[in-house]
Parts: sequence; C-alpha cells; structure tokens
Amino acid sequence: MGGYVYFFAQNRGDGSTKMRNILGGKGANLAEMANLGIRVPPGFTISTEVCTYYTQNHRYPENLEAAIRENLNKIEKVSHKRFGDAHNPLLVSVRSGARISMPGMMDTVLNLGLNDDTIKGLLEQTGNPRFAYDVYRRLIQMFGSVVLGIEGEKFEELLEEKKKSHQVKEDIDLTAENLKELVEEFKKLIEKEKRTEFPQDPFKQLDMAKDAVFASWNTKRAINYRKINKIPEHWGTAVNVQIMVFGNMGNDSGTGVGFTRDPATGEKKIYGEYLLNAQGEDVVAGIRTPLPLSNLKEDMPRIFDELVEITQRLERHYKDVQDFEFTIEKGKLYLLQTRTGKRTIQAAVKIACDMVEEGLIDKEEALMGIEASQLEQLLHPRIDPDAELEVLAEGLPASPGAAAGTIVFTADRAVEITQDGEKVILVRKETSPDDIHGMAVAQGILTARGGMTSHAAVVARGMGKCCVAGCEAIKVEEKKGMFTVNGLVFKEGDFITLDGTTGRVIKGEVPTLEPEPSDEFKKLMEWADEIRTLGVRANADTPKDAKKARELGAEGIGLCRTEHMFFGEDRLPFVQRMILAEDKEEREKELEKLEPMQKEDFKGILIEMEGLPVIIRLLDPPLHEFLPNYEDLLLEINKLEFQNSDKKKIEEKRELLQRVTGLREMNPMLGHRGCRLGITFPEVYNMQTRAVFEAAAELLLEGRKVYPEIMIPLVVHERELSILRRQTIEVIKEVEREKGVDFKYKIGTMIELPRACLCADKIAQEADFFSFGTNDLTQTTFGLSRDDAEGKFLPAYIKKKILRDDPFQVLDQTGVGQLVEMGTQRGRKTNPDLEVGICGEHGGEPSSVKFCYGVGMDYVSCSPYRIPIARLAAAQAKLEENRNTKKAD
Amino acid sequence: MGGYVYFFAQNRGDGSTKMRNILGGKGANLAEMANLGIRVPPGFTISTEVCTYYTQNHRYPENLEAAIRENLNKIEKVSHKRFGDAHNPLLVSVRSGARISMPGMMDTVLNLGLNDDTIKGLLEQTGNPRFAYDVYRRLIQMFGSVVLGIEGEKFEELLEEKKKSHQVKEDIDLTAENLKELVEEFKKLIEKEKRTEFPQDPFKQLDMAKDAVFASWNTKRAINYRKINKIPEHWGTAVNVQIMVFGNMGNDSGTGVGFTRDPATGEKKIYGEYLLNAQGEDVVAGIRTPLPLSNLKEDMPRIFDELVEITQRLERHYKDVQDFEFTIEKGKLYLLQTRTGKRTIQAAVKIACDMVEEGLIDKEEALMGIEASQLEQLLHPRIDPDAELEVLAEGLPASPGAAAGTIVFTADRAVEITQDGEKVILVRKETSPDDIHGMAVAQGILTARGGMTSHAAVVARGMGKCCVAGCEAIKVEEKKGMFTVNGLVFKEGDFITLDGTTGRVIKGEVPTLEPEPSDEFKKLMEWADEIRTLGVRANADTPKDAKKARELGAEGIGLCRTEHMFFGEDRLPFVQRMILAEDKEEREKELEKLEPMQKEDFKGILIEMEGLPVIIRLLDPPLHEFLPNYEDLLLEINKLEFQNSDKKKIEEKRELLQRVTGLREMNPMLGHRGCRLGITFPEVYNMQTRAVFEAAAELLLEGRKVYPEIMIPLVVHERELSILRRQTIEVIKEVEREKGVDFKYKIGTMIELPRACLCADKIAQEADFFSFGTNDLTQTTFGLSRDDAEGKFLPAYIKKKILRDDPFQVLDQTGVGQLVEMGTQRGRKTNPDLEVGICGEHGGEPSSVKFCYGVGMDYVSCSPYRIPIARLAAAQAKLEENRNTKKAD
Repeated sequence: MGGYVYFFAQNRGDGSTKMRNILGGKGANLAEMANLGIRVPPGFTISTEVCTYYTQNHRYPENLEAAIRENLNKIEKVSHKRFGDAHNPLLVSVRSGARISMPGMMDTVLNLGLNDDTIKGLLEQTGNPRFAYDVYRRLIQMFGSVVLGIEGEKFEELLEEKKKSHQVKEDIDLTAENLKELVEEFKKLIEKEKRTEFPQDPFKQLDMAKDAVFASWNTKRAINYRKINKIPEHWGTAVNVQIMVFGNMGNDSGTGVGFTRDPATGEKKIYGEYLLNAQGEDVVAGIRTPLPLSNLKEDMPRIFDELVEITQRLERHYKDVQDFEFTIEKGKLYLLQTRTGKRTIQAAVKIACDMVEEGLIDKEEALMGIEASQLEQLLHPRIDPDAELEVLAEGLPASPGAAAGTIVFTADRAVEITQDGEKVILVRKETSPDDIHGMAVAQGILTARGGMTSHAAVVARGMGKCCVAGCEAIKVEEKKGMFTVNGLVFKEGDFITLDGTTGRVIKGEVPTLEPEPSDEFKKLMEWADEIRTLGVRANADTPKDAKKARELGAEGIGLCRTEHMFFGEDRLPFVQRMILAEDKEEREKELEKLEPMQKEDFKGILIEMEGLPVIIRLLDPPLHEFLPNYEDLLLEINKLEFQNSDKKKIEEKRELLQRVTGLREMNPMLGHRGCRLGITFPEVYNMQTRAVFEAAAELLLEGRKVYPEIMIPLVVHERELSILRRQTIEVIKEVEREKGVDFKYKIGTMIELPRACLCADKIAQEADFFSFGTNDLTQTTFGLSRDDAEGKFLPAYIKKKILRDDPFQVLDQTGVGQLVEMGTQRGRKTNPDLEVGICGEHGGEPSSVKFCYGVGMDYVSCSPYRIPIARLAAAQAKLEENRNTKKAD
Repeated sequence: MGGYVYFFAQNRGDGSTKMRNILGGKGANLAEMANLGIRVPPGFTISTEVCTYYTQNHRYPENLEAAIRENLNKIEKVSHKRFGDAHNPLLVSVRSGARISMPGMMDTVLNLGLNDDTIKGLLEQTGNPRFAYDVYRRLIQMFGSVVLGIEGEKFEELLEEKKKSHQVKEDIDLTAENLKELVEEFKKLIEKEKRTEFPQDPFKQLDMAKDAVFASWNTKRAINYRKINKIPEHWGTAVNVQIMVFGNMGNDSGTGVGFTRDPATGEKKIYGEYLLNAQGEDVVAGIRTPLPLSNLKEDMPRIFDELVEITQRLERHYKDVQDFEFTIEKGKLYLLQTRTGKRTIQAAVKIACDMVEEGLIDKEEALMGIEASQLEQLLHPRIDPDAELEVLAEGLPASPGAAAGTIVFTADRAVEITQDGEKVILVRKETSPDDIHGMAVAQGILTARGGMTSHAAVVARGMGKCCVAGCEAIKVEEKKGMFTVNGLVFKEGDFITLDGTTGRVIKGEVPTLEPEPSDEFKKLMEWADEIRTLGVRANADTPKDAKKARELGAEGIGLCRTEHMFFGEDRLPFVQRMILAEDKEEREKELEKLEPMQKEDFKGILIEMEGLPVIIRLLDPPLHEFLPNYEDLLLEINKLEFQNSDKKKIEEKRELLQRVTGLREMNPMLGHRGCRLGITFPEVYNMQTRAVFEAAAELLLEGRKVYPEIMIPLVVHERELSILRRQTIEVIKEVEREKGVDFKYKIGTMIELPRACLCADKIAQEADFFSFGTNDLTQTTFGLSRDDAEGKFLPAYIKKKILRDDPFQVLDQTGVGQLVEMGTQRGRKTNPDLEVGICGEHGGEPSSVKFCYGVGMDYVSCSPYRIPIARLAAAQAKLEENRNTKKAD
C-alpha cells in the first residue's frame, strides 16, 4: 500500500481537489495547483487516514516512516537540496490541513531542518547571516512553543528584552549578532523549561513537528471550534510537509494573503494584504499591520500581474472566489495555498449574481451556493445615517453590520454577562482562537491590532457578526478592564456601538435603521421564487410586522397570534376583569369592551395583507398568564399583614389571591389553554371571531379583498374541532347577516400535539387547513419544556452529542418529523384538499424548510426577517429534488 | 311494518330475550317468560324505536296509535275485561324498560283506566270498596306526581293528615271512606296545582302516562345515571303496558322481589322480600319494611313452591342468577319481571364457581361473566374483628365492605366536602335517585329506612360501596344536619365507621384488616391463570407492597420507584445536601451516606420477590421536589426581614432560596428529570445501581435467587440509553468483581414519551426491555397535565362527550394506543428478544389490559390490589381472542 503519503510539485501531483477527504483542503488544493502548472513549494501530504489511524490505534501505520523518507527524497531531488546537509540544507514547513478550513486552530512549524550544523549551509547559500539567524531563532521559538508547549510569551519576552537592550523598535532592526545571541537564549529557555535540548537531528525535528500537528487536532480550542462549526471528530487532519520558501530574504521577498474578490462587499477585484521581507505568519497573526495588495502593483508590477493571472485562473478553475496565500522569494512567486474564500453574506450574494452575469455559473448554481441561514444578516438594522454620532475612533471595517452593547474585555466575562441577557461588545487588543466562545456570544468585536484577515476579522465574518479590527487609536488595558481613546476612559459596563461597515467606533447606544436590500439580493430572491413551489408566509402579530413581512416576500400570514393584543396596557384591565368574572354574563360584558379594540388590530393586519390569506389563531395561553403574579401577590399580602394595613384591602387582595391560586397550574404548558379555553369559555372565542369578521366586513364594504382564516390551537380530538368549528361558523354567519356580506374564509387547526398527528385522519375531516406548531410539538414529543431545558440541561445534551442540534432551532426530523409527516399524510388521506403548512420557528430554518417541502407541505411560515431564508431554502429544496430525480433517471 | 308494538301473554309472546335492543330488558324478558309458559300479566311492549323516533322527529310514528289500540284489544280479549268499561274495567300499568336496567331512574304509572265511572266496575268486581278507593287514590297520586309533575310530598302530606285526623298509623288502617275522601282531595290538589282536571278518559290517561314514561328517559337524573354508567343516549327506552294484577287485594295477595341466589354472598337459596296486601312499589320504594322471602314458605307454601320452581327454571334457562318481581293476586302467582340479578363481586365469584360445579356453565363462561374491574373490592380491608368497637346500631348489611368517614347529610354537601379530599359517609333517611352524585363520592351510605332492595342498597352494591340500610335505630334529621342514636347526637364532621358486611354502625374511625380471599376467589384466579398467557406483575415500592403483591399473584415487580426512598425522614437531609452540593465531590460524599439505606430498601424487596424479576426504576422526579417549597421559603424570608431578624440567618435562607430558584421549573413534568438527571448527575444513578447490586450480591451469597433489573426512565434518544447503559454495566461489573458474584440482570427503559415510541427501533437496540409508562405518555401525547386537568377542565370534556373516558384511567387506544403499538412493534423489529410490558396505571384497568394483550406485550404491571383484575382481564382477553379465532374459522 503506502497510500498514506502524496507527493506534489509544479506540474506533478499525486493528488487532486477530489481527494480532499484524505488530503485535507490544503493538501488537495496544493496538488491541484501543482497539476495546473502553478508554482507551489514542492512537498508531500500525509493523509487524514493517518490521523484517524493514530486516534484508533495509538500508533502510526507501519510503513509510514518509510513513505515519508521516500517523499523527502523526492523533494530533495526537485529542490536540489538535502535535508540535514551542512552545505546545502533543505528546510521544510509542516502544516495541518483538515477537510475543511479551521482558521488559526491548528498548529504549524516552519524552518525545520536547521541546526547548529546546517545553519552554516544556510549562511553559505544565502550569504545573509541576519536572515540565517533570524530563521534559526524563528525555528527554535516556534518549535519551543508549538512542539514543546512552552508559553510563547516567554520567547516574546526575550525578544522584547533584546530589542530594548539594543534600543530598536522592530524585529527587523535586530542585527545578525543580536539574533545569534537570541538563538542561544532561546535554547537555554527550552533547557530550563523542559529539561531537554532543542533537538539537533533534523529528522527528529520533523518527526516531532508532525506529531505535534496531528496532536493539535485534539486541543481544546480545536474541539471547541469543531463543536461550534459541527465538524465531525473522525475527519482528522492531514499534514503537509513543504520546502520552505522565504518571504524574509530581503526586500525582493515578501508574503501575503488575498481573495480574488472582496470578501466583505463582493466587489470584483483582487483584495488582500502583504508584507515585504516577512514570513507568512507575520501577516496572518496580525502582529505587523500589512499593506493592501494594490500597493504590490507598484512595488513589484511583474509579480503583481503574475499573481492576478494565477488567482483568476484559479477562480475560473474552481468556479468560486479563492482565498490564497503566496510568498515571493527573491522575486519568484510561490502559491502556498488556495481555497474557497469565506465571505460575508453581502459579498456572497453579489458574487453569485456577478458570476451568473459573467457566465461562470448558472442561476441554479448561484442559488445553491448561498447559505440560506445567513441571509437574515442582510436584513438587520444599520446605523441611522442621520443620528448624531460621537465617533471615538475608526478601525478597519472587518465585518459589516451594526452592533451595540456594553463593553467586556475577556471572553469568559462575555459568556458570563450574556447569560443574564446583556448584550456585549468584546474588546481585545487582538483575538486568538482562545477567545472563540466569547466572540460567539458577543454582539460585535473590536480589536486594537490586526488587519482585515486577522483572526478577529476572519472569525467575525464567518459568524456574521459585526467587527471593527485594527483600531489602533484605542489603548486596551485588558488587565485593568478598560480602554482609553482620546483621553476618554471606557470600562466594563459602558456602552459603545460598532459600525462594521465603515469601521467606526461610536460612543453609547446609537439608533439604527432598517437595511435596504441590494439589487443583487432582490435578483437572487426572484430567481429563488421562479424555482420554488413551496409557499412562504409570515408569523406576524401587528400591522408593522405584516408590512415588513410583505416587503420581504411573504405570501400571506401563516400565524397571527392574538394574545399580545390582550396584553396591551389599555386592554389588560378588561382582560383581567373578564377572567375574574363570576359568571358568563359578567364575562361577556367585559368581552364586549375588548371586541372593538381587537377589531381594530385585525383591520390593520388585514389591510397590510390585502389580497392574501391571514391566519388568525384564537387565544392560546392559559388565562393565569394575564393575571397578577402569584408570588408578588403573596408577598404583598404578607407585607400588608405585617404592616397591620386596612383589613378590607387585605381581604380584597386575599380574594384575588384565591382566584389566582385557583387558576394556577403545575405545568401550564400542558394546562388549560388553547382550544380548551374555547371549549370551556366559548364566549371568548366568539368575541375574537366576531372581531375578526366585523373587521373583514368593514374592509370588504370598502372594496378591499381580505381573506381572514381562523386557526384553532391545541386540538387533540376531532370533537373539539367540530364543536368549535360549528360555533365559529355560527358567529361568521351572524356577521354575514348583520353586515350583508359574504366571506371567503377557512377554518383550520394548529397541529401541535402528538395525538393530533396520530389522529390527523379524523381531525382533517373538520379542518380546511393544518398548520404544524412544531414548537409545542417538539416540547411534547420530547417531553421537554423549552423554558426549562434551553440554557439549562439542553446545552449539556448537545455537548455530550446526545442531540446534534437544539431541537427547538432545527426540526428533529427523526422523531418529531415522523409525526409531521404522519399528520400531513393522514390528514390529506381523508381530506385531499387540506392545506398544510408549518408555523413553528422551524419554518425559517433551512434544513427544516427543506424537510417541510419533502413531506409535501403547501407553505412554511416564519418570522418576517427569516422570509428570505425560507424563500431560498425552498428553492434549494426544489433544486436538490431535481438533482436527485436526474440522478435516479 | 307496524313493528313498534309487541304483544305477550302466557305461552304467547311476539318477542323474545334476543330482542332486548328494541323491547328493552323488561319487555324482552316478559316475552321470553310468556313463551316459557310462565304466568305474566298479559300486555304489550312499545319498542325503543318509538323513543328514538320521537327524539329525532318530535312526534310519534304515524301508525303507533292504531297499533296500541289493536294490542289493547288483544289484552282485553285474554283478560275478559274492557278498558274504560264501567262494569268490568281493565286496568293497566305503564312501565319503562330500557336495554339495560336503570333502577329507580325511570317512571312508572299504575292502575290506569280507573275513573269516577269505571271505579264502579272495580267495586262490582271485587266487592272491596277499601281496595277500590285505595287503587283509585294511588292512581291519582301517581299520575299527579309522575305524569303531571306535582311534588309527591304534597300528596303524602294529605295522606299523613288523613291518617293523623283519623289517628291511624299505617296506610292500611285507613277505611274506604277515608280513601274516598282522599281521592277527592287529591283531585282538588291537581286542579289547584295544575289548573287542570285529573283526566277521566282512560285512553287519555294511557296516552299521557306513555308520554311521561318516554319523557322520563330525558330527566336530569336519568341522564346523570347514564353518564355514570356509560349508557348511550340513543338507546332510548321501551314502554310496557300490562294488565294490573293486585297484590293489595287482601291477605291472599301480596307482592315481592327476589333473587335466585343471595346477591350479597352468592349463597344458593332463594332470597328476597315480600309484603302481603301491598302493591309492588311499596317494596321497592322501601317505605314499609318487608319480610324475608323465607317467611312466605309458611304464609303461602304452595305459592312459595311455585315461585321457587319458576325462578329456578328461569335461572337454568338464562344460565344466570335472576332478579325477579312477582305479585300474588288472590292466591294466583304472576311474574312481573325477571332479569339478570345484580350482585356483589363476592356473590358473583361464588355464584360463578358454584354454577361451574353445578354444570350450569363452564369455566370459561364463569371467567367471562365476572366484571374484572370489580375484583378489587374483594381485597379491600374489613373491620378488625379484635378492635374494640362502640357499635351504635345495627342495620341491614346492604352492601359489604367497611368504610369510615365524616358524616354528611346531603348529596351536595358530600360532593363539596370530598373535593377537599375528605372521606365522607352519606347519612340519609332514605336515598332517592336524586342522591346519586353524593353516593358516588361517599365512602359508604347509611340509611334509616328501606330494605335490602331499597334504592340505597341496590345502588351501593352496583357501585361496590359499603352500605348499611334500614337502620331504624338512628333518627335522621337532615334539615338540622344531625342524627341521634341511643341519646347520642352526631353532627356533620363527626366520624363513623360502617360495616356493610354485618350491618353495624360504629362510632369513630375503626382499624381495619386485610381481607382473606375466599376459596372461590382463589379457584377463579387459578382458572384465569390456566388460560391467560399475559404476565402480571406489580408496581411496588416497599417490601410490604411486594409481599401483598406476591400474595395476590404478582409474577414479579414491573415497577419499583426509588424516589419514595429519598423522601424518608431519615434520608431527606442527606438528599437535600446532595442536591445543594457545590460540586461532584461533595455530592458523592452525601450519596455515600444514602447508599447503605437504599441498599437495605432493595434487600427487603428482593427478598420478598425471591425467584422473580424486580424492575427498579432509577430516580425520576426533578430534584427540586426534594427541596423546601419555594413559596414557603419566600414568605419565611419576608417574615424574618419584617421582624428584623439575625442578618446571618436571613442570608442563609436567601442563599437557599437562590438555589431553590435555580432549580425551579416552569413545567416540571417536562423538566430536568428521569434519565436527564442520570446524564447530568451520573453519580446519583451510579449510587442507586451500586445499592441495588450490593443488596443483590449479599442475598446471592446467602444462597437466595434474586433478579434485579434496572429501568432507566424518560428516554427520548437512543444515545441517552447507550450512555447510561454503559455506565450501569460498569457499576455492576465493579460490584461483581468486589463481591465475587455473577448477576443475571437486565437493563431496560421506560417508554413514556412520544419520541421514544417513534424511535423505538433505535432505542430497542440498547434495551433488554421496554416498559410503557402510559401515565406520562398520556400526558405528553395529549399535551395534558394530569394535575391541572383532572378535577378542572377534564370533567367538562367528559361531560361534553369530547372524551368518553378519563384517559388517565382508561387507556386512550385511538391515540396513545397507536404509540404503544408502534413502540412495541418497532422495538421488537430490531430486538426480537425485547421484553415488553406496561407499568402505567392502565396496567390494572381491564379494557387497557386487553389492549396490551392485543398488541403483544409480555406482561402488565399494576398496583397490588389490582393484580386480580389484571389476571382476570388477561384471561378474558385470551378467551375473547379464542372466540374471535373460532368465528373466523
């Protein structure tokens, strides 16, 4: 066999892009580039299978050692150098490369092969002692921290001391002699810290580096990253060993990273940064602030043109934006890496449209290429341009959008504070992979150092979070928990606002504006609408929400909850009196007062949705939700008693407490709510129905086309629905007679309890439509109270991988999905005209939307801002179906 | 057509027993008796279809009138009398008769056909003016109350006045003249009350009486009765019109009721009561206290022998105990009615066994003839014979068993008080159908008047409730809310105890003893065990319960809950400290203290169940159930603050409150409980497993055979079970190593959430057994919290017939049943050896047991006292299956 190691060099690669699973992304793309004739530093890839083999067997495959030696020989041949040779030493890099990129997560060691002996060869070959010693000290430093696990700061301290003692500011100003001293100091540091010598044997260096890279797959931060990004543990990483090319061999050398298009805006122009006379790590780590790639055109016009030509070729080859790394060694350009470029959703949308224009991809590919879940970001507010802003400073616009919150200075603190519901902005000198958990919970990220491709910027864009990076005007003192800017001091708890689109850092909380969707966004949505067959409606309870929903493409309202109308400050007193009424008559009296208010609510919504169906759900929550809190009342009485207050007052409160106690429930989720209220207090549902249809009648008489539909919640038995349906129709007929109108309406039910799904065949005979309420259906199918589980034991379940996703965010297709499918099929069996939709939160989650399409629903309904997601996901579902049908043909 | 009216007379009946659905029970049996050659008063039955027709069309069928006239002609012919004839008048009775008996619920009118004219004929024919006027006043009285709806008491008052003014005590002492006066007074009462005359036209009398009887189907009390007894509304009642035969024609006449065997004990001897010179209603209404039937042997030996011969013939014919009514008119015996005799379950068991001995029925018929749900009564405690009793009085032992409670005097009050959880004894002068709702909630019933067949006695036996009737020593003053006995006064709230087996009324609450099952009971259970293939286990948490369960035939423990062990007074402090522990270490320290206690609990249970499997469920309730009540704590702190108490103390309580708050849940039913605890606090489950298996090890080493099995509750996902299974096995192996033993054990799960049923195929691969927890499964499938629904809106649901039964008592086969079936089938599909049972309360409910057999379960598990029910129901299920298989052949 020996299929564990794959060689590559210009015009000659054992692998290809298709072998990504075993070569990792970096390795596969290096092989592909080599095969395309692009100059890459020759090298070889140790496959991911080795990582998996090691994890399973706690040792390497037997023939691995030999295969590595063999491939080392090959690169010695193409480079005309020898590993460990004192005259013409070959130096190599060792880099990780998993199936998909985990930026900054995995380890890298450069310059392997250098020792007290071979440095002589490097001196000989380059005639540049400063360079040679710089390379040697970098090797020891990197080896010490990455392979031997010594704190990086300890090396940095020595470096800082050295600069201080020689009164220089930049690394570059240190002389060969200084660096030579540093080499010795670094070696001593290793001996002191690890009681071992820096290994002089190049093969041992390589071996240990390879081990360290494989081991980095299982560091805490890598595991964390995979958890957040849902990357399976068993994938493993590959290891790439390559000839070193040096960007730090003088001013005819350099290194950089870039994108074939702007990853923030999608603009079609090469985009990136570089540093002359530097190694690649200097750019990515954000330690020195690099120059924009456009400058390279002046610095090195030939190299710039070559770079543009190669990367555009790569983009055409891969039919996607490329994120590349390059090094220029003494005027010779090497591509070190290429991969699909991460981009903001704004950019993704623009790029997809542009590429269709350019004929690079077709519409369907454009649609399939966008991650639907990210579209929501496009629709989020931006900073009001008319707002008076106290701009504190300007940094790099690293990830667009706007975010406001209180300042925190550590990731741990961010997690802590957000648990109390606070919104925070994480402020750091610069971020590192150890900050991931804090970035995940923050509204936005502000760093003082690092560029557009620094860790903070890359990660924030990936997360769709606003980020301002490299804002050097702010002086962050993390340990003191403060930053200063222009003499002002900001501490934890102070508010700031970030504008990730312009890079502005603003004092306080700033008003924001609704975003204007771009033309490309609209075009993409149109394409999605052309393709999809699944309807998309909105969950909207107010005219404002309805308006927004319609703007975003809603084809009706799938769920209008009526309870918020009961919570209105002007209504609650009537609602409470209605609930506490001694008898039906008294209750009806209070309901009569509520009716005109509800009617106005419905009118507003029906007007916004003119011409489209509006499904109105009758009252759902248990009545005690509208009453004063039991414990507050208890304490109040307690207090009044202690204060020997007026007995009558106490008595009154006691009576109220008694009523509240009578309505209290052990498990309100499973209590006296939904249609159970309609059954026991028909007058409440009748009032609501009357309000809906009186509103509709008045609009009809104005010549408007309105289509109200009544949804009865929490049905478990067909008889509940038949009773309430009859009752509802009676009220509608009454209104028809009174107003002399004819309504087109439907009466349906929410399917949100397991029994309703199981008995859907019976229930469907009483229903014009079903709307799956997958929030409650998930709660009951799992026996899991969302209020009690989320943020409590559910995270442990996800951490332990008992559940892959939070079932309240992503529909549990295995369990709950069975009931949804069963309910749909059984309902349609006895009522072929049954209209079926979903109005749980899952209706705006892409994988769930695709599932709903798969079971044959007519529409999904979701919150207004998620409508574009649903539209795109619905189109993608249709396209996937087409593909599968084609495959099957 | 014209099939609405069916004639019958001795040796000649249009109908038969098989036509019960349209003739009603009484009519069908009258026809059957007539066909058997038994002397019945000739008559005809107007079928139940007329009742149904009338309910649907609000009028009678067109040809009904003619059919009635035609049949009236027939009975005129056989009786040689004519309806409305002034010389030889035919008098008739009109009685209701539904498909099944509704004792005392429906109306009856006797002596129809008498008026100012025809009474002359009656005088002529009988030569007995006292009799004739007594009959006339009875007709007017009955017609007035039943047909015209005048309060019966108003007639009674006139009667009492009449007796008083003539200084006589009994009705029988009134003279013809007195009665004649009463007739006129009664007529005037009717005119005054209803502004109408008592109708003199016999046909009008008959018509109105017929209407009244049909109408009585829809009285509130009849509807109520049908609801309690689950009799469909659409069955309707038939009306039986029969020649009057008179038991009140002198001392050669009489009337009585009886059973072919003792309905309380099952003893094989004619049993019943009679009154000489009385009409039948006098016996049943319990107004005069009648003589035991054995006396008739002396009073009228020929009649007695004839009665015994006829009724034994009927018993052989129907192959069941008969409940009959008879009248002797001038030395001639007429059977008025026969029907299956209601009996206590004690009697039912004895009779079934005796009849098998007698060769009347076979074992299978014996088993099928017992209503399984009633067996539980046999096993309830009786009064400790060694207890010192203060017997207040002795009444008739009308319905066996013992009951203690506080006294109430009205049915409404009984309902009111029992809602607070109080146990009550309903004490009445005599009961009437209006008292049904009070009897239903009382522990027992005590009446001052009435015999063994009085309303109180019949209804109490039907309900399986203890009843002492006709206890004349107690003077009940219902309005004053007291009774006196031997000079002692008892008021509402005082305790008494009833011994329904002996008739004793005892002061205070008396200790009771476990009953000894009879030999017949044991025999019946053996027969059931021979036939059934479904296993029966017990839900038992203590050695005491386990012992009882084994005595009653349990073949193991299907559910041993471990939480009660945590609630023990000596354990709770450790449990609380364990819950409030800051970390795992501290928690383990407290658990270590609990372990030996739990071990002893398990030892006791395993010893009682030696040789049989014992399924132990690991901790299930949420932890906050073990902590102090949130509100109590809140109020306590509040109080301490007002009192300016020690700050440290307040702080401590505050801290505790914070912990309690942290653990509180919105919907504890759907919260952090069951295996979710096992996942988050593995140390708790490990302690329990260790306790179980250390107990088992010690017993094994003593040479005992014990089979503990571990049940993991509330699983929704196979990964929960696989994690906990692995963890459990590890602990078991540890104990095996430590103790040097080898266990035979199983690890399974409770299937109690819809998702577990839906994904049973996956879960079964990690389980040795499934046990359906249908209590929680019902809650989640319906989305219905038992705590919040029962006694709140669930009764309304049953009243409105949305649900036929309380789904927590009777398994909802339509909905929840689907999940149970699905879970069983899917589980067995991937794990053919899977053992499947049920441990919800439904495991002891006959229809649910039969369902479980039908879906192929291995066993049911129920509370100890329900085990005989389950054993019998299991046998019946098997027999029904055999029958259906035979039919299909």
